[in-house]
Order: sequence, then structure tokens, then C-alpha cells
Amino acid sequence: MRFSDFGSRFSSGTGTGSLMRDLSRLPSLPAGRTAACRLGGGNPALIPAVMDRFRTALAELAADTARFEATLGRYDAPQGDPVFIEALCERIGKRDGLSIRPENVLLTNGSQNAFVQLFNLFGGSVCAEGLRHRVLLPMAPEYIGYGDLAVGDDLFVSRRPTVDVLPGSRFKYGLELSGLGTCDDVGLEEHDRIAALCVSRPTNPTGNVLTDAEIDALVALAESRDIPLIIDNAYGAPFPNIIHVPATLPRSPQVILSMSLSKVGLPGARTGILVADAEVIRALAEMNAVMNLAPGSIAPGMTAPLLASGELEALCEQHVLPWYRARADRALQLFDELFGTLPVRAHVHEGAIFLWLWFENLPISSAEFYQQLHDDGVVVLSGHHFFPGLEDDPAQPWQHRHECLRVSFAGEEAEVIRGLEIIASHAHQLYDGAA
Amino acid sequence: MRFSDFGSRFSSGTGTGSLMRDLSRLPSLPAGRTAACRLGGGNPALIPAVMDRFRTALAELAADTARFEATLGRYDAPQGDPVFIEALCERIGKRDGLSIRPENVLLTNGSQNAFVQLFNLFGGSVCAEGLRHRVLLPMAPEYIGYGDLAVGDDLFVSRRPTVDVLPGSRFKYGLELSGLGTCDDVGLEEHDRIAALCVSRPTNPTGNVLTDAEIDALVALAESRDIPLIIDNAYGAPFPNIIHVPATLPRSPQVILSMSLSKVGLPGARTGILVADAEVIRALAEMNAVMNLAPGSIAPGMTAPLLASGELEALCEQHVLPWYRARADRALQLFDELFGTLPVRAHVHEGAIFLWLWFENLPISSAEFYQQLHDDGVVVLSGHHFFPGLEDDPAQPWQHRHECLRVSFAGEEAEVIRGLEIIASHAHQLYDGAA
Repeated sequence: MRFSDFGSRFSSGTGTGSLMRDLSRLPSLPAGRTAACRLGGGNPALIPAVMDRFRTALAELAADTARFEATLGRYDAPQGDPVFIEALCERIGKRDGLSIRPENVLLTNGSQNAFVQLFNLFGGSVCAEGLRHRVLLPMAPEYIGYGDLAVGDDLFVSRRPTVDVLPGSRFKYGLELSGLGTCDDVGLEEHDRIAALCVSRPTNPTGNVLTDAEIDALVALAESRDIPLIIDNAYGAPFPNIIHVPATLPRSPQVILSMSLSKVGLPGARTGILVADAEVIRALAEMNAVMNLAPGSIAPGMTAPLLASGELEALCEQHVLPWYRARADRALQLFDELFGTLPVRAHVHEGAIFLWLWFENLPISSAEFYQQLHDDGVVVLSGHHFFPGLEDDPAQPWQHRHECLRVSFAGEEAEVIRGLEIIASHAHQLYDGAA
Repeated sequence: MRFSDFGSRFSSGTGTGSLMRDLSRLPSLPAGRTAACRLGGGNPALIPAVMDRFRTALAELAADTARFEATLGRYDAPQGDPVFIEALCERIGKRDGLSIRPENVLLTNGSQNAFVQLFNLFGGSVCAEGLRHRVLLPMAPEYIGYGDLAVGDDLFVSRRPTVDVLPGSRFKYGLELSGLGTCDDVGLEEHDRIAALCVSRPTNPTGNVLTDAEIDALVALAESRDIPLIIDNAYGAPFPNIIHVPATLPRSPQVILSMSLSKVGLPGARTGILVADAEVIRALAEMNAVMNLAPGSIAPGMTAPLLASGELEALCEQHVLPWYRARADRALQLFDELFGTLPVRAHVHEGAIFLWLWFENLPISSAEFYQQLHDDGVVVLSGHHFFPGLEDDPAQPWQHRHECLRVSFAGEEAEVIRGLEIIASHAHQLYDGAA
């Protein structure tokens, strides 16, 4: 049986596929190791107080015949559960004064599917005008999952960040403002047009949070070109609220905000949420119908009461935020102890659930380092996956792309500790061997 | 904000979008009508014994902390919940002796998403060979949802059926065997290749069930060309088992079987199931990762115990099958009473949840008839949506395509009765006016 070009491309060796396989299959362990350290995928922590409340919410749904049948026994509209959407408008409106109405909200089967729809709605060919619409990622590194989901070729272009080296083995990326308005450094061809901007904030994989000033610059660019600025808020406020620095959600009709129930603890639910201009939501609802008929309704049905009452936000503030804060502090303290004498830096941690480590002048590539660690029972993600749309420029090579690892600290604490110890031990050997 | 060609096509005026909008929005009612009759979409019946058992199953999931957290708190593998898949292999294996192993099964976010993946995996361009891979629907009418989901242009070709006029205002479609092997009647161009075959069985919209002999002919064609035969079993056995004639599931590595939890009563769950050759499942798992990271896991987690114990099949046999059998009998009896004197025929009802009515020589098109009924508070589906890939042939026009309606009898019985009465009343006026 033979596949089409589309089929071949979507079904072979994608970064996302590799990520999800690593998430569900443990590596074979070498002699002497008794357990794998799973620091790769994005599974959130199972925080007891949070999971208990969700479990009760599911029991409440099961105990209410009418609500159960309305939720599981009916297709939702392609836009998603109206009760959940109404509750979201209430809460987001109350919190950030954004004045969002139901026609501005759409539910999807998870954020990944939301981005398949968004990127291909805006990006791709426009044959009548002889144009190729491209999506600009203004600041690589960006999320691994974006790279594979373009229906056409070469959807993404992206820009290098500024890199600030900070005291105490830290560093921080920043938005390169120079040339932002012209985008003349991203290799656009004559017939290329930037059709959308996208950033994750907090950024997966780096844990960076774009400042309000950086976001303002991107909003201005989006407004000047009448294109959307997509903000992937999967780790941001109001839920899951894994964010440790002030960050405002901008008010602009150009902004498309993506949210999710995954990182509050419900990745199995596959519930993504998009907030956007009504015209965009109408188009996405039609796309949702064609691709899925309707989004799944169990998780929205189960969580709508928690959203409406404010309990969901309270759980995030009282449990999710402090849990990850403590985890991040412990992981960075351990990093400093283990890597302090090496030329390895951690990105400042402002949000999300990962350490982003930069192994400057590592003698092997991050892809090879990933494999070496995998063979030793430690699953992380090689950083080279996180630069979608960034071309190798022989005139200005950027080795940095092959010097980083993403390390999740959401899993079992013992695995995180042992994993970091093993990574450090390999790093010491590699640097010592090269010296 | 401007959309790409892909975005424009997927987001505007699709049949699937129209179907799903009608399903979630009631029509405005004219003066004198007190309630709408929703005979359009594919919502299944809420059969009390069945829904009660599902409700208990959900309560059991909520009561079991470990199972709850494994189900909702983790991403499944892109292939889907291994416990559900194992149970499916056990049951399907026991029932039909098909010897299916876990590597032959994949879960999706509903059948619609399964078909997006399947059709585009096989169909589309193969640039290196200068080929266009197309999907053959060997017997139109076929399911409305297929028509809109091709990433490229002109994915489908289809063939007219034979039409047997039967006594008592009935008729039945059959597979046209003549020319089946060459497909020279479907308008293939030089660079076109048939890359897959697809049938729904029982057929949505007609309620037809392809005979074992017809399926054998399609399997032979698939084997001779080494292409898949996709069988959409959304209404078939072992679940939901809304099928009233004998029908065997064929054993052939060419067959891709699609199943769903929607029509047992759980459309909100969005759980589709594909059974296929391991190589195809591997490709689809990668595609699932890119498009969705993983399928939703709540419904598989909730129903796996019922599948493993055989309860799910027992519920279908004891409740679902007889419920729809009685509904179909009642609807056809009413049809005979109301339409007996008109040149209107019903397709023989062999499965699924619809009447497919043929208004021969109706003075207006089915699309116009749909609108007229909609304006009078009765939602059905116009038959013209159900001929994807069938070109209008000016030399041999086929008015039949514009003479049919699909009428669901799964809803409230009072709505079905009143709806059929209103349809009959309009039909009488239309035929009388034309006479």
C-alpha cells in the first residue's frame, strides 16, 4: 500500500511523533540502572488536591443524569460546549477586563489540533494572488509541536533571539527588535507574505516569558499588517497559571489566545480553548466540523462548574503555582550544585515546567547527547527540535541550536534528581574528554 | 485578516458544517408551529438502559483514583489507550475470528478525524511519480462527511449504483459490478490512480448493507491493486450493532475497519477506532501525534471494562438493536400510510438510523425541498450532499441525485411522527401543484 506525499510526510519521523513515543515507551535500561528517568514529555504533575477535585467533578457529572446525557449523549456544536464557553467568558472577562463574548471562543480536541487548524487557516498558498502565506515565529526556540503540522511546505520562518548571559550560570533570550518590522532577516522570497505571528508565553521549551513590552511590539506589528498574533498560553494565567513573573494578556482584536486544560492536570481530556475575533472563530468552527464534527465534550462538561465558580482558578493559584514554583527552585538549586563548574547555563525560569539547559561548546550535538542519555535510561528532549523555521545560515552559523536540552521537572522528584545527576555525570565526562 | 486557500476551503460552506450547525441550532419556527422536528443530524437515541450503564461506568472511573489519574492525568500514546485496545482485540477476535493484535488498532478523536487521516494518508499528490492518488467510493450515495475533508483537490471519484425498484414503494441500491475492475467510468485522467476504496456499511445515508458478495468483489479489487478497502462500520456489529441483515466482516490485510462509540450513545466522547494492517497503524499513529498529540482518553478509559467483559456487546444486542428495529418499523409503517399514494419510495432499511426517501420527479430539487421544510420547522438533510466524487455527466444526467432526503428516526418519537406528517403534506402539495 502506497501513501501520498502528504501521508508520507505526516507519518514519518516527525519531532512530535518522537516526543509522544518517548512519552509512552520507557527506554531499555542498561545494566546497573533499575529505573528510567522520564524527563522528556510534557505530562503535568498529578497534584493530589487538584486531581481529587477533578475526580469529584467527574463523580458529580456521573451523578447528574440530565447533565450526563447532555454531555456524552449529544454532539456538541462545532464551537464546543456553550455552558463551558459562557463560564469562560465570565471568568476571563472578570479577571482581565477583556470583554470576551461566546462568539469569541472555540473549543478544540487539545491545543495541538487547535494549531493544526490555526496555522493552516492562515498559512499556505493563495493561488489567485500567487502568494505563499507564512507564519513567523518571532523568537526561536519555539514549541516542537508547531514544526510538523503544516499541510503545505515551508510554513514557518523564525528569528533568532537576543541572548543575555547572566550571573550564576543563567541566561535569557529576548525578542530581537531590530528589523522586526521588515522581517528582512528571515529569508522571505518575492511571493512570500507573513500571514500570522505566533509565540508561546510562557515559552515551551525555555521557560521564558515575553515581557509586556515585547508583546506590545508584536501586537503593533500584527496591527500594522492586519495579521493575527497567536499567543500560546498553555502554561499561563488564569489556568494553569504556571508563571512566576507579571504578564498581561493584551487586548487587541488581532490577538488569538490559545489555552488548554492539559497542564492543570487533564492532558487525557484533550481540551484546547481558542479566544479570538468572531470572524476567526466562525472559520475555525467550520474547520472543526470538517475535521472532527465537534470537539469532545466530557472534559468541558466536567469542568464547567469549576470554571464558573472560580474554583479552577483558585486551585491553580493555591496548588498548581506553588507546586511548580517549589519544583523549579529545587531543580535549579540541584542544577547549580551539579553543573556549577561546567560551561553549562540554565535559562532563567519564569514559567512552564521545564529547565532549558545550554551546554556551550559541547563536543557532541544535542541530538547525540539525547541518544547517549536515552541509552543510559534518561529521557529528555534534544533542543534542536525547537527551532522550526530557522534556516541554517552558513555565513552566520549558530551552534547554539545544537547545544541545548529540554528537561521536564514535572515528574517524580526522585527521577528528576537522579536524571539531573546522570546528565551532569555525562556532561562532566564529555567536557573532560574534550579538554 | 486573510486566509490561505486551504483555510478558505475548509472554513466556508461545507456540507459537514451545515449538518453540524443544523444539529446544534433549532430552526426559527413559523407561526402556528410550536416545536421543531429535528430529523437532520446523526445524534443517536438516548436509550435509558444503555445510558444508565454508561453513567455507572463513569462513576466507577471517578471512584477509582489510580484509574482516574492514569486516564485523565496522562497523555495516552498516539495509538490510544492500551487497555481499551487490548479489550477490543479480545472481543473482536472472539467474535469474528479475525485475530487482531494491539499493533492493528488505533484510537482517534472520532470517526470524522479518522477519515481526515485515512483519506489524506492514501489520497493526494505523489509528485515524484507525477501521480494524483484518488479515493474511489464504489457506490454513491455515500456519507456526507467524506466530501469535505480532502487536503488536496478532487480527492474522490465515485460510481453510480444499480437501482432496484421493489414492491410496496421500496427500492434498493446495489454495487455496479460491470466495469468495477477497470474503473473506466469514473472519469480518471492519465495521471490519476485509485489509491483506496471506501464504503460505509450499513450505509449512511441509505440504510443499505452491502452484501458479503459485494464486499468480496471489493476485497478482490483491493487485493489486485494492493490498495486498502476502508469499511466504515459506524453502525455495524459488534457495536452499536444497528444492522438487521447478516453481514460478515471480511478477513484481509487490505481491509481497514472503522468503528466508533458514537452510535452506542456516546457521540460527545469523540472516540473512533481503526483496525488495520500494522504498517498502516504505525503511519496513522504518527499522524495522530502530529495532529492531536494523542486521542482523548476519558471515553476509552470509561468503557474499557464494559468492552472487556462483553457487557458493551450485550447492551447493543439486548437494547440498541431492538430499539432501532422498532423505530425503523414504526417509521416505515408511517411512511407507507402518509406517502402511499405518491411516487415516493423508501430505501429498504437494513441498518443505521435513517430513512432514505426518493421523491421521483419532484418538481423542485432536494436542496429547495430541504429549505422549504426547514422554513416549516422540520430539519432533514438534502440528499444531494451524499454524492461526493460523482460528476454531473451531461450525456447521462441523473436527476435521482436531487430527489432524495435523509430523515433520522433516532430522536423523540413525537418529532419523527410530526416531521414525517409535515414532509408528506409538503410533498402532496408539490406533486399536486405539478399535476
